[in-house]
Amino acid sequence: MAAIAARRADSAPSAPLVPRATAFPPPVIGPGAVDRQAWIAAYREVRAETERRAAPLSPEDQQIQSMEDASPTKWHRAHVTWFFEQFLLAEHLPGYTIHDQRLHYLFNSYYVAAGPRQPRTQRGLITRPTCAEVATYRAHVDRAVEALLGEASESALGAILPILEIGLYHEQQHQELLWTDILHAFAQNPLDPVYDPAWRLPRATRAPGAVTLDRQVAGIGHEGAGFSYDNESPRHETLILPVRIDRALVTNRDWLRFMEDGGYARQELWLNDGWYAGQTQNWEAPGYWRREGGGWTQMSLGGLRPVDPDAPVSHVSYYEADAYARWAGRVLPTEFEWEVAARSGDLADADGLVWQWTRSAYLAYPGYRPLPGALGEYNGKFMSNQFVLRGSSVATPAGHARPTYRNFFYPHQRWQFTGLRLAEPLA
Amino acid sequence: MAAIAARRADSAPSAPLVPRATAFPPPVIGPGAVDRQAWIAAYREVRAETERRAAPLSPEDQQIQSMEDASPTKWHRAHVTWFFEQFLLAEHLPGYTIHDQRLHYLFNSYYVAAGPRQPRTQRGLITRPTCAEVATYRAHVDRAVEALLGEASESALGAILPILEIGLYHEQQHQELLWTDILHAFAQNPLDPVYDPAWRLPRATRAPGAVTLDRQVAGIGHEGAGFSYDNESPRHETLILPVRIDRALVTNRDWLRFMEDGGYARQELWLNDGWYAGQTQNWEAPGYWRREGGGWTQMSLGGLRPVDPDAPVSHVSYYEADAYARWAGRVLPTEFEWEVAARSGDLADADGLVWQWTRSAYLAYPGYRPLPGALGEYNGKFMSNQFVLRGSSVATPAGHARPTYRNFFYPHQRWQFTGLRLAEPLA
Amino acid sequence: MAAIAARRADSAPSAPLVPRATAFPPPVIGPGAVDRQAWIAAYREVRAETERRAAPLSPEDQQIQSMEDASPTKWHRAHVTWFFEQFLLAEHLPGYTIHDQRLHYLFNSYYVAAGPRQPRTQRGLITRPTCAEVATYRAHVDRAVEALLGEASESALGAILPILEIGLYHEQQHQELLWTDILHAFAQNPLDPVYDPAWRLPRATRAPGAVTLDRQVAGIGHEGAGFSYDNESPRHETLILPVRIDRALVTNRDWLRFMEDGGYARQELWLNDGWYAGQTQNWEAPGYWRREGGGWTQMSLGGLRPVDPDAPVSHVSYYEADAYARWAGRVLPTEFEWEVAARSGDLADADGLVWQWTRSAYLAYPGYRPLPGALGEYNGKFMSNQFVLRGSSVATPAGHARPTYRNFFYPHQRWQFTGLRLAEPLA
Amino acid sequence: MAAIAARRADSAPSAPLVPRATAFPPPVIGPGAVDRQAWIAAYREVRAETERRAAPLSPEDQQIQSMEDASPTKWHRAHVTWFFEQFLLAEHLPGYTIHDQRLHYLFNSYYVAAGPRQPRTQRGLITRPTCAEVATYRAHVDRAVEALLGEASESALGAILPILEIGLYHEQQHQELLWTDILHAFAQNPLDPVYDPAWRLPRATRAPGAVTLDRQVAGIGHEGAGFSYDNESPRHETLILPVRIDRALVTNRDWLRFMEDGGYARQELWLNDGWYAGQTQNWEAPGYWRREGGGWTQMSLGGLRPVDPDAPVSHVSYYEADAYARWAGRVLPTEFEWEVAARSGDLADADGLVWQWTRSAYLAYPGYRPLPGALGEYNGKFMSNQFVLRGSSVATPAGHARPTYRNFFYPHQRWQFTGLRLAEPLA
Repeated sequence: MAAIAARRADSAPSAPLVPRATAFPPPVIGPGAVDRQAWIAAYREVRAETERRAAPLSPEDQQIQSMEDASPTKWHRAHVTWFFEQFLLAEHLPGYTIHDQRLHYLFNSYYVAAGPRQPRTQRGLITRPTCAEVATYRAHVDRAVEALLGEASESALGAILPILEIGLYHEQQHQELLWTDILHAFAQNPLDPVYDPAWRLPRATRAPGAVTLDRQVAGIGHEGAGFSYDNESPRHETLILPVRIDRALVTNRDWLRFMEDGGYARQELWLNDGWYAGQTQNWEAPGYWRREGGGWTQMSLGGLRPVDPDAPVSHVSYYEADAYARWAGRVLPTEFEWEVAARSGDLADADGLVWQWTRSAYLAYPGYRPLPGALGEYNGKFMSNQFVLRGSSVATPAGHARPTYRNFFYPHQRWQFTGLRLAEPLA
Repeated sequence: MAAIAARRADSAPSAPLVPRATAFPPPVIGPGAVDRQAWIAAYREVRAETERRAAPLSPEDQQIQSMEDASPTKWHRAHVTWFFEQFLLAEHLPGYTIHDQRLHYLFNSYYVAAGPRQPRTQRGLITRPTCAEVATYRAHVDRAVEALLGEASESALGAILPILEIGLYHEQQHQELLWTDILHAFAQNPLDPVYDPAWRLPRATRAPGAVTLDRQVAGIGHEGAGFSYDNESPRHETLILPVRIDRALVTNRDWLRFMEDGGYARQELWLNDGWYAGQTQNWEAPGYWRREGGGWTQMSLGGLRPVDPDAPVSHVSYYEADAYARWAGRVLPTEFEWEVAARSGDLADADGLVWQWTRSAYLAYPGYRPLPGALGEYNGKFMSNQFVLRGSSVATPAGHARPTYRNFFYPHQRWQFTGLRLAEPLA
Repeated sequence: MAAIAARRADSAPSAPLVPRATAFPPPVIGPGAVDRQAWIAAYREVRAETERRAAPLSPEDQQIQSMEDASPTKWHRAHVTWFFEQFLLAEHLPGYTIHDQRLHYLFNSYYVAAGPRQPRTQRGLITRPTCAEVATYRAHVDRAVEALLGEASESALGAILPILEIGLYHEQQHQELLWTDILHAFAQNPLDPVYDPAWRLPRATRAPGAVTLDRQVAGIGHEGAGFSYDNESPRHETLILPVRIDRALVTNRDWLRFMEDGGYARQELWLNDGWYAGQTQNWEAPGYWRREGGGWTQMSLGGLRPVDPDAPVSHVSYYEADAYARWAGRVLPTEFEWEVAARSGDLADADGLVWQWTRSAYLAYPGYRPLPGALGEYNGKFMSNQFVLRGSSVATPAGHARPTYRNFFYPHQRWQFTGLRLAEPLA
Repeated sequence: MAAIAARRADSAPSAPLVPRATAFPPPVIGPGAVDRQAWIAAYREVRAETERRAAPLSPEDQQIQSMEDASPTKWHRAHVTWFFEQFLLAEHLPGYTIHDQRLHYLFNSYYVAAGPRQPRTQRGLITRPTCAEVATYRAHVDRAVEALLGEASESALGAILPILEIGLYHEQQHQELLWTDILHAFAQNPLDPVYDPAWRLPRATRAPGAVTLDRQVAGIGHEGAGFSYDNESPRHETLILPVRIDRALVTNRDWLRFMEDGGYARQELWLNDGWYAGQTQNWEAPGYWRREGGGWTQMSLGGLRPVDPDAPVSHVSYYEADAYARWAGRVLPTEFEWEVAARSGDLADADGLVWQWTRSAYLAYPGYRPLPGALGEYNGKFMSNQFVLRGSSVATPAGHARPTYRNFFYPHQRWQFTGLRLAEPLA
């Protein structure tokens, strides 16, 4: 464990990227009196973190959508606000006045049951409301939410708190996207804008060795009190076969060896779809890497910097992670192996650096049931063509993730902080 | 079991669609003397079946590629021949003269290790060699293969037979594609050409009830003697949770209820990617269905016919199968559940009607190793973005499939004979 | 002529859309002493007009590129500034310090000879420099240009003034684009933003009758002193055949009759390419028209308004104009007929309302020579696939156009203020 | 004139590519008795030429459509037959029985007024009717047309002959396309199929010097008796300015100098749209040229051959022709200049080698009126975005073209036998 401690000392910036959460997560929902002030504090902390992340960005920065998968900062700020207005205030605050009904069309993301919406690919075209008007919208909703929390009856809170809670986790997800999306936008600009000069991806822990799992029937998925998404349930048994999982993440130093060995040019290492994705997009290195002189730089939220060989490799797609593992004569762990190993506590950097691709397709757990109503669209309808990532990243807000948390992206996507660790089946 | 017998009586055409195999599969490869005549007979039977399927088709019919996923009949006939020439004759028949080296570029499908090749989407542009010239090519290779089998030393056969064997299974896969591809081509023609007036999809067995599986650790994958593909190995344990799997396939009658209940228009029933696939392609019924007057017809190898409510639904994509299951409050079985249930013998129509979508993504079994060399590209490189189908279809040659056989297609594809059966997890 | 006077009284807004130019155009370049103050005044007036047009727009508004043909307001402001820096200051002001060399990549439009540039379709991705930084850039260049004009020797001015002059006309062209581009951007926003509540397209003059041209050999193209673009030269003779050209523009009232007569659905009225353009883009009315209740509204710089039947039809493509003419049993005039008729003075609304499509393809005049150097790319390289428009529009800055002025757009484009007048060949 | 005679002797193949017409064109339509046998002979000659051109092609060859602009041989054979059936027999032969009504959907090309039709891009998907069935269709229509010509009353012939005549010219146009389309198809095949080993593009005449045209008002367009298309009318006056037009065509030798001087890489030589067309399609030489060793070969109907420096350059687009002219400091002639010069008789190779691009956009002549009815779609609806070519090519059937003939293609197209001659305006 010394190695882990060492990393924290070595590489931690003086101010942490993501401030320690003090009021989040909010209290566990259950019987007994509700601590309204704790909920208000959690709400304020989450809402403030969104604004903290948007603060370095000009109105121009907040306006653009640099690719279909990304959204404007301004849109994120408004959409998470719409979520509270649509699902919480409109339903549960008697006499609440919708701030501006027209915003519901603009800031609904994909909730079909909540009505028609601005096409996803055209979010960057909406210059009005301006950033200032979005701030007004946020304040309007904040006042109403806080009033609701202060005034609702205890029995009404039974319906209110679960929606508030998912709204907070939802806003945190958009905080992570806000960072990954603006990084993508800045990476399109030949001027290499800097979001925060102090930003850096922490170095990976030097953690030799591996966690060995014996054959076992393991319980997988969320159980007990506390928040989780629907896709983490139901808890169910899975058979784990003997496997070793590296304690450490794959680093840029490791990745450079793959590149030097022709990894991006050797078709036999690649899945067929991955090879064509790479050819089409001219992959020859992880996302945001550029060849400069004899070396490599990487565009980051801290600007353009030399690639740090000790940092975990990041912005790699599933296809790249899979090709790397094949090159190394290894495999990615399954999401179930990852979960069992993470519970052991011996994985280094499970959280806070990069999401880790697993070789598990994103599918429903046996007996899965989506949430009722429009919120049922939250996770279930995406259960095809994507792979599961586990852990969390440098962009994940404090208190957001769990060992049972299932993140998912398409195998060609790489604008997230996505990396990998390797595993090896034992005969 | 009476119901199954009844179906065969009711619906079997006088001449079976796929003739009973008499010489296929060939002997199990193992120690002891090789029955050369049995291998030659198997080879001839498989080769003849290809020609039997091509026989009703004019040179014009055999020329075209009606979409990217399909290939011309002529190309299938030549490609499977190239496979024997490339992997068997060129390697193992001393002094063999390549028929025409230029054909290797034209008729390699996707074997990168075997050299460059005609782009997949442009197979329909190759009018020369003509069908007659392809027949000459086939005869050339047939003579050489038979000579090789007759003359090779016993020790040489140890290397030869595994390649011959995979070549035969490979050719059978293309026999199935030959039918599905020409059906797609004919379906583009307003004249509704008929491939074989006697062709019909057999009716499904009326098989009420379900097979119940208890919680168990089951062995999955191929074991023992006899041929199997690399992707069926290694045999390994999987935990099966309690589940009931319908004995019967979903029929057109069932599917019409889904359609009448607005199934194709209710977005809440669909996976997100599936919804957009359906919108883009204007799905409102299974593949090849057309609304005529008050009812539905379906283009088939037997021409345009009224939809038979008792036939299994066919030409549905994974997305449609998944939406149907959700509408029915059920699920598709996993491929593991299917395999265990199929072994019980109580599934009706497991084989010979339609492939059955499972809810399992097509991924490597733990410890999977592809074949060495170019043949390693056979199955492994497709292990992303596809779903597993189990069973076999009306188009599958006799002797081809197994209970451990893993077919796979992309979830939007529906030009194959693809259907489904439903399952239900038990708490 | 009474009718014309009446229109001006009826429809003129209290403040004109485009202020009367007082210092533009600058003095005619020629022998004799240069009036430096007049040039500085003209420069200031043009530069100020750009800022006047940008002033109502937020940084968010100025950021976006709503389609490939359009550019961000901020980009226009910077690009016209780059033009002066690149072609004037860098060449002719000794010791001039480039404001920021990296901006040259970002704000070059299409001048190949001037170096590589930001891809046209990605101008909206550049959030930095911000609007405020662009203002700083403009001020930097303004100071230098004014210093250059004040201090250059008389002989140096001989080279300087022609570049300055084309720079001013160039900036005016972008002023027109600034308006048409922001109108397109606003039209994408469901909130229907208003650029200027007082904006309106003036009503067309009620000018019955036609100008008749007899058979004649006419001189076409610019001659004499004063600025003109290279594509207006050389002046040359053309044979005009007898023709009548309507004095009045086609109005929305006229156009509604075409629509009511099924004009958009009758393929026989359309050019083949036009029909497919319309089908692809679902044309059923001029650009920015929307069906509301029983009538039609049109998005404008003044917001969403009912269509004014007396306004000239605007935002129609060449294809639509051509189909309308065919429906009416008429033709569009050639650009040569237009020029001769305009010289007669009897065309109503030749200027200041909408550009008028002609049936002349945009081609080089006999003996045409582009300008030397990078500025040779200004007009000549676009001489294929476009049609000529004559006159000027409500968005054209005062003093910009001439009777010999040749505007050109692709026949499918309709985001400009483009309309038409009809003609009729006389046997 | 000696030079021209010499060429014919030097380069003419023993059998001419296009046999001398003996019965075509048919008699001029006019008052007086109709020579029915002459019309039947002309009909037979044209019909036979189509079959002669198709004869070397296998059913597979005749099936495919190798790009959107091309059509299958089989389709051409059927479409021209449909034209006679639709416009002639169905209208004018009492009691005529349509061969198969379903073919009208398949073989209508673009006549909207004649009903719906197979999408242009999907002509290659129609394997039935087979080639043999198309031959039966042709024979059916031939019998009926000949019967009609033999039996119709003199007064009926007044309506019949103009349709028959346009049908013959129409079929000839498809004869030319048949060759250019199969050349394109064969050029996609790595086996380099040979259509006719004796085929070759004749060498160009060595014809130094130029034809000089003085300023003049010239009559342009068809006049007098004999067939012409609607787009050649009405005859009208045009002003010709002084110009010199080269007697000779540009040859491959000339073109190689352009290539050696970097012509394909120097953006300043190109129209903007042309540059992007060339970049997108990787133009570095004329169509069908391939770099082999140190030299160039060109795929032709005679197979793959070394480029003949003395042959006229062929398979160049308008964009290439325009860039070449700019490189040479010259221009292409206008179509009017070409027509006047051709009438002088001093242009070498005006006919029979390659069509010659002009710098005239394809537009209506003043007072143009399309034919009435569905045939009005023949030429008029294509009058945008194309350029005029004059002369005729090696693929043009004997008797087809005229000095007033206006061919037209899009400026990026180059699968036709298209070349150029240069011109020079005189001050």
